[in-house]
Parts: sequence; structure tokens; C-alpha cells
Amino acid sequence: MSATPAFNPPHRILMGPGPSGAHPQVLRAMGAPLIGHLDPDFLKIMDQVRAMCRQVMRTENAHTLVTPGTGTSGMEAAVMNLVEPGNRVVVGINGYFSDRIAQMAERAGGEVTRVPFAWGSPVDPDAMERAIRGAGGPVKLVAAVHAETSTGVETPIAPLAKLAHDHGALMLADCVTSLGGIPVEGDAWGADAIYSGTQKCLSAPPGVAPLTIGPAAWDAIRARETPCNTWYLDLNLLETYWDERRSYHHTAPISMIYAVHQALALVLEEGLEARWARHERNGRALQAGLEAMGLVLHADEGYRLPVLTTVRIPEGVSDAEVRGALLNRHNIEIGGGLGDLRGKAWRIGLMGESSTPGNVLLALSSLGKILREQGYRADLRAALDTAAARLDQP
Amino acid sequence: MSATPAFNPPHRILMGPGPSGAHPQVLRAMGAPLIGHLDPDFLKIMDQVRAMCRQVMRTENAHTLVTPGTGTSGMEAAVMNLVEPGNRVVVGINGYFSDRIAQMAERAGGEVTRVPFAWGSPVDPDAMERAIRGAGGPVKLVAAVHAETSTGVETPIAPLAKLAHDHGALMLADCVTSLGGIPVEGDAWGADAIYSGTQKCLSAPPGVAPLTIGPAAWDAIRARETPCNTWYLDLNLLETYWDERRSYHHTAPISMIYAVHQALALVLEEGLEARWARHERNGRALQAGLEAMGLVLHADEGYRLPVLTTVRIPEGVSDAEVRGALLNRHNIEIGGGLGDLRGKAWRIGLMGESSTPGNVLLALSSLGKILREQGYRADLRAALDTAAARLDQP
Repeated sequence: MSATPAFNPPHRILMGPGPSGAHPQVLRAMGAPLIGHLDPDFLKIMDQVRAMCRQVMRTENAHTLVTPGTGTSGMEAAVMNLVEPGNRVVVGINGYFSDRIAQMAERAGGEVTRVPFAWGSPVDPDAMERAIRGAGGPVKLVAAVHAETSTGVETPIAPLAKLAHDHGALMLADCVTSLGGIPVEGDAWGADAIYSGTQKCLSAPPGVAPLTIGPAAWDAIRARETPCNTWYLDLNLLETYWDERRSYHHTAPISMIYAVHQALALVLEEGLEARWARHERNGRALQAGLEAMGLVLHADEGYRLPVLTTVRIPEGVSDAEVRGALLNRHNIEIGGGLGDLRGKAWRIGLMGESSTPGNVLLALSSLGKILREQGYRADLRAALDTAAARLDQP
Repeated sequence: MSATPAFNPPHRILMGPGPSGAHPQVLRAMGAPLIGHLDPDFLKIMDQVRAMCRQVMRTENAHTLVTPGTGTSGMEAAVMNLVEPGNRVVVGINGYFSDRIAQMAERAGGEVTRVPFAWGSPVDPDAMERAIRGAGGPVKLVAAVHAETSTGVETPIAPLAKLAHDHGALMLADCVTSLGGIPVEGDAWGADAIYSGTQKCLSAPPGVAPLTIGPAAWDAIRARETPCNTWYLDLNLLETYWDERRSYHHTAPISMIYAVHQALALVLEEGLEARWARHERNGRALQAGLEAMGLVLHADEGYRLPVLTTVRIPEGVSDAEVRGALLNRHNIEIGGGLGDLRGKAWRIGLMGESSTPGNVLLALSSLGKILREQGYRADLRAALDTAAARLDQP
């Protein structure tokens, strides 16, 4: 018997930008025996996943599925399929992930206009409209991130979708961090394409990406003059497996499909509105507590996500030491800053199963105590009092 | 509480072309709580996965990792990263998956020469050499499938690698169905790039793809003049996460990394040679039994994979009825023919945990009885006698 490494991952409290803690029933679902990717029983599970994705994304789109990869695979599938060489693409850039959309659109051969916004502000429709008008010709695709995981900012999608349609363009919305945590209203927004991930507010492990494509976007994909850059995520091919043709394309990630099936069922059993209210209540309590402690929230007021809070790192406090102490002494993961916010802000997630009153109080208490050790005069009593009071409100 | 679909997948005996049955310890590993994709404990697990992948692929390649998608993502990562627009690529086409390599190389902008072989025969080095000489200029990449899942044929890779190197080209080998079942000797073959899947002879669920890139291939990837077509599977980016830089690229499919960690550990604990011998013994017993029953094996003698057997469907027998009866009455999944072999052959897998003496005898017994109902005079006694005797040999 060779010496093989032991497998013993620790039990963490996941309050970073994702993954969030998985629901025990989701973990248990992955323990179910494998069945074949063309087994009639598996095809039924796929149909149920499609149907539940539609419910959770609030859309009637026929072309709704999960791509066989993490959230970034959903982004790649959407962008690579919708953008053909020479297509004009306008992307609102207010964080790390919106810039990633732009990078992918460039790889797809798109002529990309990046419309910059502060990392901490939403995408502004007026600036986007000026960019669309100045793009030098018809724009094929307008894209924005609904919930920027790098900044904790929500950008309302409906006004951007209207703007895109007014100019004959399609609207792509990244809902990786929002789906299942705050309202995602696919059809009511008029979004033409939405993708998400499973490891945020759906509380499943990362590994598949819910994706929905509306009729106009689907027509554009069907009418491509050149094949999509990617074979693995070519939606014309993927759809032949997910629809009634059931053609072999790839071997589906069976256990991850089990996981997302259970995760979506749990979301619907809780009820979308109740789930949104839970995320709202816990997120606002955390934010009120952080401010009461004396800290400064980074995202613009009015656009702060309840599911992911960015808070500025106080002067003189060591980012690495604070996060290290949280992890090693309290088993709590929070996120560091990404991109422009590296070393400047922390990202505290309250997503899915991780969004609980207990985690709100635990985060404030643990962070407050560590900040005091670092010489920052955190007002811990005010933080906990304020948060506890806010937890009693709707 | 909404009416959400119940989750109750059946327990199948998986003897198709994959997935194979997962080891209970692998399923259990996926039930472990999630930790963050940048958690120090997770990074250790990633390092162990890299090290175990190297052992199982018999390579010292530094650039060894698992891509965040099923086996096809490994193929796409290898092809899209190694092929730049205008590069000449020579692919030996002896089945469905080798043709898929050619399709991907075309999407990457390669000038692809397809060298056709019978679906049931290996790739012949002499024909490949003629194609390389006739390609109209220097060839960048030679590719072949080690174990063709569509035909049950093994193609020796070492002679093709020598040939590629003699002509200044790199050698890419698809080892999706071979890894962990028959010898894969990455460095001894001289393969420059190898990818695999997890749901075949490694007996983990599908969802990640082991991939190793040798020094010359890595130099080629580093020296690309144009960025790779895919962002999600761009190895220059992926490597920054897997190596000591630990840059964020995507949220790793945590539970699938747990699964492949356990699966690789189980392979090494069994021992590669012992595991190869087990697959050889069970596969040859099945093949001997099928022939004793009166059936005709499809793949060329001498090149038949022990892990995946193709057997011709006798005249007058209904493909769909036989596979339906196996699934519905015996809970056994076998595979239908793919591509050119649709309706002409069955594919019976004995991979990983599914490669057991019990499954050999069960497959022969169940198939024999169903064939008799279909009017085919299967010699069931000879089949079982022959297989049982073969199971006692090495």
C-alpha cells in the first residue's frame, strides 16, 4: 500500500465571496450512486433542473440549462456564443468580473467598448447610452454584472436592458452572486441572457453554472456565421443534449447535477421571496453592525448588496493578519479585496446557508475582537446591539 | 412549500462507456463540508492532486493539473492551448473522439489533416508519417486517442510520439478511457500532452479532467503569439492558480477536487500494476465469454481494450430492446454504438469499480438470456464456463 495523503478538510464557516456553506441535503445528494448521462432517470433529473432553473431565474426561456463548469464557464458560454468576430460589445466596468466579460468578448473577436465606473458604484445607464451611441455602429451586446462580487455593488438590470433594446442590442446580465439571494427577474427585466453559479446564494458546491438564453439571443446564436470559439461550451451543441434530441455532447457532471437539483429544490421550498427577505435582513444587520463598530462600508449607499458586503480595512490594520486570525482561530473565511480593492477592503459574504443571524453576530464579534488586538478601537458593544436590533426587523 | 421534484436516482450497475460506478469512499469524500478555493487546506489538497496525477500518469511534468470540467474540457484545454491559427495539425481518426480533436483543432484555427482509419483499427504510424510529410510544411501537433471509447481500440502512443518528435512536432494523447485501467506511461512514451477524465477507470464522478503538459508543449503555450480561444481553459491563466502564485482564476469545483483526490489515492493504494492486471483479467474474461456465446467482437484482435469491449449486434436483434431490457429488468447500463457504429455494436465497459468478476458473469448471463428472447441462439453455458475459467488466469 503506497503512502497516499490523508483526506481531512477542516470545517470552516464560509463568509467569503463564495463558496458559501452547502446545505447538508445538497452534500448528501452528491453521495447518491452515479447513473449514466443518458439514463432515462437522469434525463428526467435534467428536465427538472431546467424547470427549476427557470423558476429561480423567473423566466420562461426554453433555452435554460446548466453549463458543465463553474460560474466562469457560464460567463464564457454566454459571451463566446453571443459575440462573433467584429461584433460591437459595450460592457459596464465597475469591478473585476465585468472586466472579465470584456476580456472574454475580446477573445471572441468582439470590438469591445469598456465603460468605466468607480469600483463601488453601479453601472450608470446614461454613461452606457453615450457609449452605445459612440460605438461607431450598431451594438450587438450590452453587458453588466448584476451583483459585482468584487465590490459588493448591485446594478439594476432592467434600465440597461431597456436601453440595449432601444438600440437594437441584446442584454447580458451576470447574476453569479445574486441568484437565490436577491431578486433576479429574468423576463421582467427583459434580459436576453443570464448566467449564474451554484456556490453563492444557491449554496451548492461550485461546478455547474445555470444559464438562460432568451428567444432573441437564441436566434442570434443560431444565426452565427462562424462557429463559436469553444467546442465544450458551444450552446448549439450543448442544447442538442439538453433538449429532446438527447445527443451525446459531453458526459454530464452527474454528481454536480444532483447537487444543483437539490439546491434548487431547497430554494423553491424556502420560497424565493422568503429567501430574499432572509438575505436582506441578515445582510443589513451585518452592515449596520459594521458601521456601528466604526468601520466604513465601501459600496455606494443604496446599491449595497445584502449578500456580499465590502468594508474598508482601517488604517494601520494588517489585512493578512486579520484574515489569518479569523481563519485559524475562529475557522471563519472572509474574502480579501480583489483587483483595485486588494489590501483596501474585505468582502464578507452572507449567502445561502451561510446567511444566518448566528453568522452575523459571530462575524461582528470575531472581527471586532481581532481589530482591537490590532489597535483599532472597534466598538463591539454597539456593533452587536445594533445588529441584534436590526435582525428583529423585516 | 412548493411542490419540488423528489430526488431518488436508481441504483444502476454501470457497464457502459462511462461513467463507471464510483467508489463509496469517493462519494463519501464529496460529502465533506466545503472550504474556500484559496483556503490553505484546500491548496494542500490541490498540491496532493497534482502529485497523485503525476504518479498515475507516470510523468514528472511540472504542469499537471485538473481542468474544471469533464473529460471534454481536458481535450479542449489541450487542443485550444496548443494550436494557434495556421498551425498544422495531423490527427489519426479512428473513431468519434479522435474526430472531435480534429474539430476542436479547426476551431482553434489549425490547418488540420485528418488521417482516416477503420473504426475498429488502431492509428497506423506509417500512414501518419505519410500525412506528416504531405502536410505542406512543418507540423505543430500530432494527435491520437490512446483508448478510443467509441470503438474499444487501443492505439500505441510511443511510436506516434517518436514519429512526431522526428518531425519536430508535439504529441498529444487522449487517455480519457485508459488512465487507471491500462498502462499510461506519459514520460516513457514521450507524450507532450495527455488529458483524461475521472468517470472511466478512475471511478470518480465526471466533472474534472486530469491534464499534463510536458516542457516542450509548455514552451509552445508560453510562446503563443495570440491568446488562446478560451479564457476558462487558458492554461497560462489556470497555471497561475495551480502553481505557487495562487492567483484567482475560477472558483475550483471543490467537491469534485475532493472526489478526484480520493479516487487517485485509491488507485495508488491498489497499485497501478495490480489495477492494470485486474482490468486485463476481467476484460479478457468478458471478451472470451462473448465469443464463446457466439458473438463477434468488433475491434481488431491485438488492439482490444480490456476496459471497453465493442461487440457486434447480431442480425435480427433489436439494439433498443436489448439495452432497454438490460436497464429496466437488470439495472445494467451498457452503451450503444456511437457515430459510425450506431445500431451496429454495443459497448460494454469494465472500468474502475465496475471491473469485477461478478459484473463479467452478470453481463454475460443477462445479455445471453435477453438475446435468446430475441431469437438469437446464445450459448450461455459456454459463455459462462469460458469466462469463469479466464477469470482464474492472470
